[in-house]
Amino acid sequence: MALVVQKYGGSSVADAEGVKRVAQRIVATKKAGNDVVVVVSAMGDTTDELIDLAEQVSPLPPGRELDMLLTAGERISMALLAMAIANLGHEARSFTGSQAGVITDGSHGKARIIDVTPGRIRSALDEGAIAIVAGFQGVSQNSKDITTLGRGGSDTTAVALAAALSADVCEIYTDVDGVFTADPRIVPTARQIPRISYEEMLEMAACGAKILHLRCVEYARRYAIPIHVRSSFSQREGTRVIESIEGTDMEQAIISGVAHDRSEAKITVVGVPDKVGEAATIFTVLADAEINLDMIVQNVSAASTGRTDISFTLPATDGQTAMSALNKVKERIGFESLRYDDRIGKVSLIGAGMRSHPGVTAKFFSAIAEAGVNIEMISTSEIRISVVVDGDDVDAAVASAHRAFDLDAEQVEAVVYGGTGR
Amino acid sequence: MALVVQKYGGSSVADAEGVKRVAQRIVATKKAGNDVVVVVSAMGDTTDELIDLAEQVSPLPPGRELDMLLTAGERISMALLAMAIANLGHEARSFTGSQAGVITDGSHGKARIIDVTPGRIRSALDEGAIAIVAGFQGVSQNSKDITTLGRGGSDTTAVALAAALSADVCEIYTDVDGVFTADPRIVPTARQIPRISYEEMLEMAACGAKILHLRCVEYARRYAIPIHVRSSFSQREGTRVIESIEGTDMEQAIISGVAHDRSEAKITVVGVPDKVGEAATIFTVLADAEINLDMIVQNVSAASTGRTDISFTLPATDGQTAMSALNKVKERIGFESLRYDDRIGKVSLIGAGMRSHPGVTAKFFSAIAEAGVNIEMISTSEIRISVVVDGDDVDAAVASAHRAFDLDAEQVEAVVYGGTGR
Repeated sequence: MALVVQKYGGSSVADAEGVKRVAQRIVATKKAGNDVVVVVSAMGDTTDELIDLAEQVSPLPPGRELDMLLTAGERISMALLAMAIANLGHEARSFTGSQAGVITDGSHGKARIIDVTPGRIRSALDEGAIAIVAGFQGVSQNSKDITTLGRGGSDTTAVALAAALSADVCEIYTDVDGVFTADPRIVPTARQIPRISYEEMLEMAACGAKILHLRCVEYARRYAIPIHVRSSFSQREGTRVIESIEGTDMEQAIISGVAHDRSEAKITVVGVPDKVGEAATIFTVLADAEINLDMIVQNVSAASTGRTDISFTLPATDGQTAMSALNKVKERIGFESLRYDDRIGKVSLIGAGMRSHPGVTAKFFSAIAEAGVNIEMISTSEIRISVVVDGDDVDAAVASAHRAFDLDAEQVEAVVYGGTGR
Repeated sequence: MALVVQKYGGSSVADAEGVKRVAQRIVATKKAGNDVVVVVSAMGDTTDELIDLAEQVSPLPPGRELDMLLTAGERISMALLAMAIANLGHEARSFTGSQAGVITDGSHGKARIIDVTPGRIRSALDEGAIAIVAGFQGVSQNSKDITTLGRGGSDTTAVALAAALSADVCEIYTDVDGVFTADPRIVPTARQIPRISYEEMLEMAACGAKILHLRCVEYARRYAIPIHVRSSFSQREGTRVIESIEGTDMEQAIISGVAHDRSEAKITVVGVPDKVGEAATIFTVLADAEINLDMIVQNVSAASTGRTDISFTLPATDGQTAMSALNKVKERIGFESLRYDDRIGKVSLIGAGMRSHPGVTAKFFSAIAEAGVNIEMISTSEIRISVVVDGDDVDAAVASAHRAFDLDAEQVEAVVYGGTGR
C-alpha cells in the first residue's frame, strides 16, 4: 500500500462542481489501494476576496489578524471536500494546519515551517480515513498563533507533509497538464516535459515558471520527495520531478526549457566611486531593507573618472523600498544618481545538459540576437543561462531560443485550462 | 477597573461599515477604563451562505465537517474586528473558540459547554489588549475536533466566558433596543423593559421572544452573570437581566410582557386506549427519537369508549420525525389515528407578579376571548400562562392581552433596526 499526498489548487476547487470532481479523483486514488492525504487551497478567488474585506476595514492590518482571516479560506474548502468524499461513501476528516501539526516560526504572512508532527493525520490514515489538510497555514511554535506560509504555501504544505509521513509521492494538481518547455501562451508548440530533475525545476521556478513555487521544490529536493505535477482537469500523465536524471537517461534532452519572468525591475546606481567597500555598502543597505536581489552587474571602472556603475535586478514590488533606502545613503556613498526600470524581462535557458556542452551559451546568445533582441544583463549557473532584455522583447526571445534548441513539438500540444479561477 | 464582556450579533457586523462602527464602540468601552472581551458572530448571512455551499456538495454532510465549515464564519468576522480596532490605535487579539478555551462535548452542531479555560484571554487582558473571541464554537474535550453550539450559541459563549472570567457584566448587542413587552412588529405600542429577572427572561425566551436564547439565560442565571441587552445601532440604555427583583422594587410592573411563538406544531393522538402505561409508551417513543415536547394535554377519558385523546406541541421542525415514530407503534399502542397541525401559535403572558395575583389568569383569558380568539390548549408555570391558538389569531391575542395588562406605552416607542442583515 502506497501513501500518496495530493495537493489541489484553488482553481481545481473553485465551486461546488469542482469540489465534487476533485472528490471523485481522491476516492479513485483511495480505491486503487493507497492511503491518501489531501492538501487543499482556498476556493477560487476566496483569498483575494478576504484581502479586499481586510482593506475595507484597515489600511494596514496586523499580520496576526490577517493570517487569522485568510486561513478561513482553506477551512471552507477542506470541509466541503471532506463532505463531498463522505457523500461518495468514504470517510474523510479535515484538519487545519495547526491540527495537522504544521509548526512554523512566528513570521505572519511568510512563516517558515520548523517541524511537522502529523500525529492526527497518521491516526486518521490508520483508521482507514482520507485526511484533508488545509494548505498554506500553520501554527507558530512560541505564541501558538495561526500563521500563513505566503506565496506557494499550499505546495509547500503538501511536500512538508509528504516528507513527515514518508509518502511515496507528492502529487501537485493544477490547471495545466504539467511543466512545459516554455509558457504555452507564448510558445504554442511548447512540449510538456515528462521528467525533470529537482535542480532544473528549481531553476525553472526561480526564473519565472509559475507552476511550482521555489520553496516547495527546495523542500522536495532536501527530503527527496518525488513530485508529480498533473492537471485535475485531465487524465494526462503530467511531469515528474525527481532526483537528477543526467547520465541515467541518455535520451533526455540536454535542455529542459525556456523560462521567462516579467516581475522584476532593474536599478542602476550611476557613478559609484571605485573604492574598496563601496559596493559592499550598497548591498548592506539593501540587505537591511530585506530586499532579495537577483542579478548583479558591475561595469568595468572607467580609469579616467575612477567611477563605475552597478546594476541589479530585484522584485518590482520591492522597487520603491530599494530606491528610498539607496537615496538615503547617496551622500555617504557619493554616487551620482539612480536609474529605475521596471519594463524589463528575464529569459532563461535551463538544462542539466549544459554543464558538459560548452556550445550551449553561444547558441542561446545567437538565438536571442537572431530575434533582433538586445541583451542588457547576463548571469549563469551550472544548469542555467539568464539574460535581461527589454520587456517588449521577451516573447520573441523565448520563441527564438525554444526553436533553436529543438524544443518545439511536432504539433501544438499545450492545453491550458483554468478558466474557473486563478 | 471593570471587566466587560460584549457580544455582537451578525447584523451588527454585517459589512465593513458595521465592523468599523462596532470597533468604535469597543474602543470607547476600553477607553472608559474597562478590560474588554468581545464575542462576535459571523457577518450577516455568512452562516446561511456556508450552509448553502454544503448543501451543494452533499445532501447530508457529516456533523464534524459541517462544524469545521461553519466556524470559518466567526474566524472572518473576528479577524476583521481585531483589524478595525488596531486601526483605531488599540491592540486587539482574536481567538477561536478552541484558543479561548471553550471546551465542549462532542455533539456536533449542538455541543454543550463542559468547561471554559480562558488562559490566553486572561493573558491578552493582562497585557492591555482587547480580546476578540469567536462565538458559537468550541473544541470537543475528547476528540479535539471543532464543534459548534447550535442556535443562540454566540450568546452562550459570551455568558460562559463572562462566568469563567468573573466579568462584571455581559453586554449582548443586537439590532433592537432591548427586551420589549411584546414584539414591536405586532404591538407598535410595546414598551422597552428596563429591568427583568432571569426567571422572567427565561420564560420569555422559552415562549418565543427571540432576543436572548434560552441556554444563554440559563447559564447566566446559574452563574449570576448580569446581562445587559442593548442595540449596537443606538445609545439607548437597553434592558438589564438580573437576579429576581420582586419585592425589592415595588414599582416594577407585575407583568413583564406578552411573548408569542409560531414555530411549534401540535400532534393529537386520537383514541388511545385508556390503560395504565399507554401514555408512557407514547412519550418514551418520542423521547427515544430525541424530540423535545412543550405542552401536553390529555383529555378526560370518555367512559363509554374507554379511549382518550392526547395532544402535545413540539418544534415544527421535529414534526415529521415524531409522526413517523408514532406511526411505527400504532398497532402496539392501539390508538386510532394521528392529527398534525402546524398552523398554531402560542401566546404567553409572563411576569413574576402573577405568583401572588390569582386574578391574572382570568384577566388573560378574558382578553383573549374579547379578541374573539378560541383557546386550544393551556399550560402554566408560577410566572407564566401560555395558550395555544390558531396561527392566524396570534396577533389579535397578543395585542389584546398587551392592552388588558396596561403594557402599552404612552406613545409608540419601539424602533426596530437591523435592515442590514438578519
